[in-house]
Amino acid sequence: MIDDEKFIRGQVPMTKQEIRTLTLAKAQIDSDSVVVDVGAGTGSISVEAALIARRGKIFAVERNSEAVELIRRNAEKFSVNVEIINATAPDGLDSLPELDAAIVGGSGGDLEKILDALIAKLKVGGRIVLNTITLQTTATALEYFRTRKILYDASQIQITRLERVGRYDMARALNPVTIIAAKKF
Amino acid sequence: MIDDEKFIRGQVPMTKQEIRTLTLAKAQIDSDSVVVDVGAGTGSISVEAALIARRGKIFAVERNSEAVELIRRNAEKFSVNVEIINATAPDGLDSLPELDAAIVGGSGGDLEKILDALIAKLKVGGRIVLNTITLQTTATALEYFRTRKILYDASQIQITRLERVGRYDMARALNPVTIIAAKKF
Amino acid sequence: MIDDEKFIRGQVPMTKQEIRTLTLAKAQIDSDSVVVDVGAGTGSISVEAALIARRGKIFAVERNSEAVELIRRNAEKFSVNVEIINATAPDGLDSLPELDAAIVGGSGGDLEKILDALIAKLKVGGRIVLNTITLQTTATALEYFRTRKILYDASQIQITRLERVGRYDMARALNPVTIIAAKKF
Amino acid sequence: MIDDEKFIRGQVPMTKQEIRTLTLAKAQIDSDSVVVDVGAGTGSISVEAALIARRGKIFAVERNSEAVELIRRNAEKFSVNVEIINATAPDGLDSLPELDAAIVGGSGGDLEKILDALIAKLKVGGRIVLNTITLQTTATALEYFRTRKILYDASQIQITRLERVGRYDMARALNPVTIIAAKKF
Repeated sequence: MIDDEKFIRGQVPMTKQEIRTLTLAKAQIDSDSVVVDVGAGTGSISVEAALIARRGKIFAVERNSEAVELIRRNAEKFSVNVEIINATAPDGLDSLPELDAAIVGGSGGDLEKILDALIAKLKVGGRIVLNTITLQTTATALEYFRTRKILYDASQIQITRLERVGRYDMARALNPVTIIAAKKF
Repeated sequence: MIDDEKFIRGQVPMTKQEIRTLTLAKAQIDSDSVVVDVGAGTGSISVEAALIARRGKIFAVERNSEAVELIRRNAEKFSVNVEIINATAPDGLDSLPELDAAIVGGSGGDLEKILDALIAKLKVGGRIVLNTITLQTTATALEYFRTRKILYDASQIQITRLERVGRYDMARALNPVTIIAAKKF
Repeated sequence: MIDDEKFIRGQVPMTKQEIRTLTLAKAQIDSDSVVVDVGAGTGSISVEAALIARRGKIFAVERNSEAVELIRRNAEKFSVNVEIINATAPDGLDSLPELDAAIVGGSGGDLEKILDALIAKLKVGGRIVLNTITLQTTATALEYFRTRKILYDASQIQITRLERVGRYDMARALNPVTIIAAKKF
Repeated sequence: MIDDEKFIRGQVPMTKQEIRTLTLAKAQIDSDSVVVDVGAGTGSISVEAALIARRGKIFAVERNSEAVELIRRNAEKFSVNVEIINATAPDGLDSLPELDAAIVGGSGGDLEKILDALIAKLKVGGRIVLNTITLQTTATALEYFRTRKILYDASQIQITRLERVGRYDMARALNPVTIIAAKKF
């Protein structure tokens, strides 16, 4: 678990520490995993995945060029190997090898096509985990899995920091994230 | 229920609409109530209380002079009568008449003395309602009521707005507030 | 604000106190309001609405006969007049007069038709307020308003009670409810 | 990350999956860690810690004999070695070796003495992580760390499951848990 402030961030939104940890746990990544991180942003999930999957392989798909540069710098900072695919998913997913896990942090609107492409690449038993922050993306993802009779679990995670302000600890809410996890059968 | 943006606000933190509504409901204010609002801030609670207690009387206690000016302007804007006491509570509470309800939005650290002074002024059956945003203030308030065998109810209220951003509704969390309500026996 | 335990409840789920208070505030009910409560359940919202709208009129639409009996008994207990329509909405909504406010606590799946029928009955400037507990109902409601370019505000309300257990106050979460409010233009 | 239902549970309360995962991550347990789990309950945290700390050592301290039996059975089920200390902490902590991490799930009221004993056993740089569910335990823990000028981070984690009920996903809130983590300097 890497502290948020250790990542190089720029103006790109970053998945918070606890959400990263839960996402990677639900993706069941181990030392040999081959993983794709779609909408990788700062690369914080890709980097933590790469630290676990030491003998595996991490692909980070990201369309924004400022973010691509952050992923490159964060991978360098943490001395991990992340293969960056600068594309707007589902573009760029065709070239992926067979996957143990797929993580979707951002989808840019084409979620069903991205899920189709990812599930095609996933091994049987492989995991797909989404982080969603809008009602519509959550609804679209659940509908996608329901329609295909793919079992999922979904939980909204609301984290409230107790921040020291003098002799008080003030409650500061982070925006909730819904984590949706499914397994390919 | 007045929209938050209708109040004149400056840099002073303001109780959000839903918290105001629940606080006033738990204080059981009616058209004849005599009410004090301690740590009145922008005066948003005082103004809404005054709109309900048309034949009653609202006192707003506030130590910050910028806030005092906001209370004055908000009372004027909504055409209600709020008597402002520019003091650091418990100073200024001695001069209050018998109260139907006391609301504590901010306490500046002297919470026990403020509660002592307010309970002394409350009618039997009167309500005292606190909004707390730090762990320590919540703990101090509950300990105060427990020690004196005063029944209370306490709930943390976490509101997450679904904000329109293009074709999405994004979850945006507000900081949670704990509302503690007790009744003088 | 009536305590939850004062209502006669049976096995029918009941809107909790704070959600009732916020729902009625967002519906902007006053002493003359004509209001319908669709999916009225125990009638707790209908009864509180009737206590505010003393010179107005409250209609409670409910399909479940056990619930209908609870509404009748709760209205009697609180000495208010609630006209019960034992029907599965949108059935039964045609006969309503012009409305100041419509509250939808339960929809049984036909939400768009219910909203069509309610909006047809609402006065210009009238309010419609929904309480939703499933992702799909929330998504359907927001999509309904978006498609028709009706402005709405939507917030998820998560209440956590601090319950006394000996010398501790334990955090007990209630299930979150999303309150969606719109105004007819 | 082990599914909750895979643990043998009886009537003993169990830390939920996500809270276990975050607690273990904040405790920074690795393959060689020596860890104590105080108030181990069903042993779910001890078992997951033992699966990570394959070459380390896990101690589970628990006073309740029904729970002790569950820890034993869960350790057996997951084929891990957990040394159970059937005692009411701080009793039983004296015999522990030097620790990399200490986890406190339950304290039975003697929290300061337990923290004293654990910090005495922790290596410099070692982590102590508490899960608290009452306001008083949270306040006591933060006060303990503040008084001793030990840095901590504390976050309330609120998880809301989206549970499939027919064609809907209903929001079901779990009780929030506060995770407090500190490092021995």
